[in-house]
Amino acid sequence: MSDWQEIDGGIACVAGFRCAGAVGGIKPSGKADVAVIVGDKPVIAAGCFTQNQAAAASVAYCRRILERNEHRGVVVNSGNANCCTGDAGMIDTLAMAASVAQELGADVGAEAVAEDFFVSSTGVIGVPLPMDAVTHGIKQACAQLHGEDPQHSAADAILTTDLVAKEIAFQHASGYHVAGISKGSGMIHPNMATMLGYVLTDVQIEKKLLQEICSRAVSRSFNSISVDNDESTNDTCLVFASGASATVIGSEQEVADFEILLTHCLQQLAQKIVRDGEGATHFIEVEVRGAQSEVDADAVAGAICDSMLVKTAIAGNDPNWGRILCAAGYSGVEFELNASRVILNGVVIFSEGSGHDDDKRPFVYAEDGSSLARETLAETMTANDISIIFDLGGAGPANQSATRWTSDLTHGYITINADYTT
Amino acid sequence: MSDWQEIDGGIACVAGFRCAGAVGGIKPSGKADVAVIVGDKPVIAAGCFTQNQAAAASVAYCRRILERNEHRGVVVNSGNANCCTGDAGMIDTLAMAASVAQELGADVGAEAVAEDFFVSSTGVIGVPLPMDAVTHGIKQACAQLHGEDPQHSAADAILTTDLVAKEIAFQHASGYHVAGISKGSGMIHPNMATMLGYVLTDVQIEKKLLQEICSRAVSRSFNSISVDNDESTNDTCLVFASGASATVIGSEQEVADFEILLTHCLQQLAQKIVRDGEGATHFIEVEVRGAQSEVDADAVAGAICDSMLVKTAIAGNDPNWGRILCAAGYSGVEFELNASRVILNGVVIFSEGSGHDDDKRPFVYAEDGSSLARETLAETMTANDISIIFDLGGAGPANQSATRWTSDLTHGYITINADYTT
Repeated sequence: MSDWQEIDGGIACVAGFRCAGAVGGIKPSGKADVAVIVGDKPVIAAGCFTQNQAAAASVAYCRRILERNEHRGVVVNSGNANCCTGDAGMIDTLAMAASVAQELGADVGAEAVAEDFFVSSTGVIGVPLPMDAVTHGIKQACAQLHGEDPQHSAADAILTTDLVAKEIAFQHASGYHVAGISKGSGMIHPNMATMLGYVLTDVQIEKKLLQEICSRAVSRSFNSISVDNDESTNDTCLVFASGASATVIGSEQEVADFEILLTHCLQQLAQKIVRDGEGATHFIEVEVRGAQSEVDADAVAGAICDSMLVKTAIAGNDPNWGRILCAAGYSGVEFELNASRVILNGVVIFSEGSGHDDDKRPFVYAEDGSSLARETLAETMTANDISIIFDLGGAGPANQSATRWTSDLTHGYITINADYTT
Repeated sequence: MSDWQEIDGGIACVAGFRCAGAVGGIKPSGKADVAVIVGDKPVIAAGCFTQNQAAAASVAYCRRILERNEHRGVVVNSGNANCCTGDAGMIDTLAMAASVAQELGADVGAEAVAEDFFVSSTGVIGVPLPMDAVTHGIKQACAQLHGEDPQHSAADAILTTDLVAKEIAFQHASGYHVAGISKGSGMIHPNMATMLGYVLTDVQIEKKLLQEICSRAVSRSFNSISVDNDESTNDTCLVFASGASATVIGSEQEVADFEILLTHCLQQLAQKIVRDGEGATHFIEVEVRGAQSEVDADAVAGAICDSMLVKTAIAGNDPNWGRILCAAGYSGVEFELNASRVILNGVVIFSEGSGHDDDKRPFVYAEDGSSLARETLAETMTANDISIIFDLGGAGPANQSATRWTSDLTHGYITINADYTT
């Protein structure tokens, strides 16, 4: 349907940008902790941020400078969230932006100022930023911007408890690119999860249109995932368009094509976060169908994804559909239990108000109605990817749907989070 | 302040009721699984139930018969929730009520019918009730009603994954009693948590007044606790008044006194559920002060209690206040971070927008402003009871507060729930 393909190369393949990651010394582990992405010329930017009232200084700063018409890029540090750090936190955020502007002065020309650069921070909350290390990292990263980025160093430098780097790139048939990096593993919940996402494209596009498309795509990607239901203080997603390719996004068809590709890119980056969820052993997709509205469908999917009992059952490879019904029941959405169907890994396990036949035997059959052995369901639960379809039974024009993604809840999650810091 | 005291004896000390628990054979463990509580004469009843859309047959049945002016008692089975069991589930619920009415026929006289008896079920969802075992248990329990209940057998018979029975009794100076039993350990969340609670009193009181007091007391007890944020399908709290004592609850002062005692009894029963939370190693009290409304205060307390990151930090004895700030931040309540104070186990750890002094050292001092050694905070985290006070900084008439209780999130919870059933 869409005329594009995934390609190698990561964000470095997008024309008009340079990027690098470096070791500043913020992380005790000595791993890379500062990333810089910068446009060769001024770029168009769109963004979405956490709704958390205790948002970090960097988020407040990004919201304010997003109003500018043009920007130049973003600087990110990992290992420290610079959140709940008082006035000193905002001073440090501004210093990070100023430091990048200064380092890049020769490249970007006299017009470059601190406010051309977004700032993100991720890591532990409440500890003052070690600015010597941060500044050192910014210098190191900027010095590497003139080289290529075969090591995907920017994708590495934004990670915290993540086990793997998250980067993906696509090329559209008309020649332009959409590519991004993301991070996140815990404190993951809609609006916007502790996640950072940076997507680059080389299309030419109006700022207002880019923001509209970005907001819709984020709601169907980063705002449709959860790991532990904790909405972070630092969540940030930024989309930058350099205009360095020949493609102009203007016609209705071009806009539709671009939005599909951008949404796909963001969904892939978001799903990579769930797959790397702290302690995760299963990736869970919850699709709700037959709702009266998309909002209702999303609420039911969210309740199922956030249920600790559903998530622990799946960790134990247990097809415990009672917990799925229970979570849907407290979602706040009204629905008819007797009209609902639950399909777990392709197996119908609940229908017509019950999970058993007239002889009180638990029933299992395929979506097409053919009967299956009960062992079939148990076998599918050991797979990495788990599919839950909850059909609320609504039909016709009211048949709305929504999909969310989450991970299971395991001993690994407890081990990671019962002894993280302070 | 209130003129009453806790006494031994449990619910058996309330005049006008008899109770018993027995082994029906529903639980593979062979433990008691059927409880019966019955008034010597017709009794006044009030109740609150789960808001879950997938509520069990017994809940739908109880809601309907609550409209009657008088009742006779309640029959409870544990080991099977009789939920998501289709039409057969409602037939089995009615059969349980009819079975008790029949067994007690000789005692209660010709006027007794099935609808005189409430029914509760708790246990696994989606499995048909084994009615032979249930009926056997009802017969056994009813046969024991004529004896005393020194073994607290009713309190034992309503348990599922609970480690301990939950029963408490009080005597008011004017001679009447308030006593109750509860169960619950997992699937615990407001409205109403998977919990069952049955409170007996021998006061004489109007049905409408009893319901009003019951509803307010439940909102400040069973609806203020959580273990795992999953609101169950079967939650039920019933309060029965036999009128067998000489005390009439009529005057404003009598009503106020009775409501304080009933609320205290329900809070004690609710807190016993949290202390027995699945895998719990800490009991956590979260008090929010300085809010613009009680609803706001409750929302902030709820967000902190429900945060998996707060609960795992406390499991690890970690005073990670950043996670507490983060949870308050996504509660949906607007507040001024710079005006807020967080007090953990009596130690102020966040104030004036920051958790550190001008020299960037983490600060700790007592509520009265005197400084403490940092080790003091760490030492308090190993205690069983953890106190979190979040002062939102509101003052004057808008200074509203709310308190909730929860347990920590541990490996034990995962072990219990990743391998519970099917």
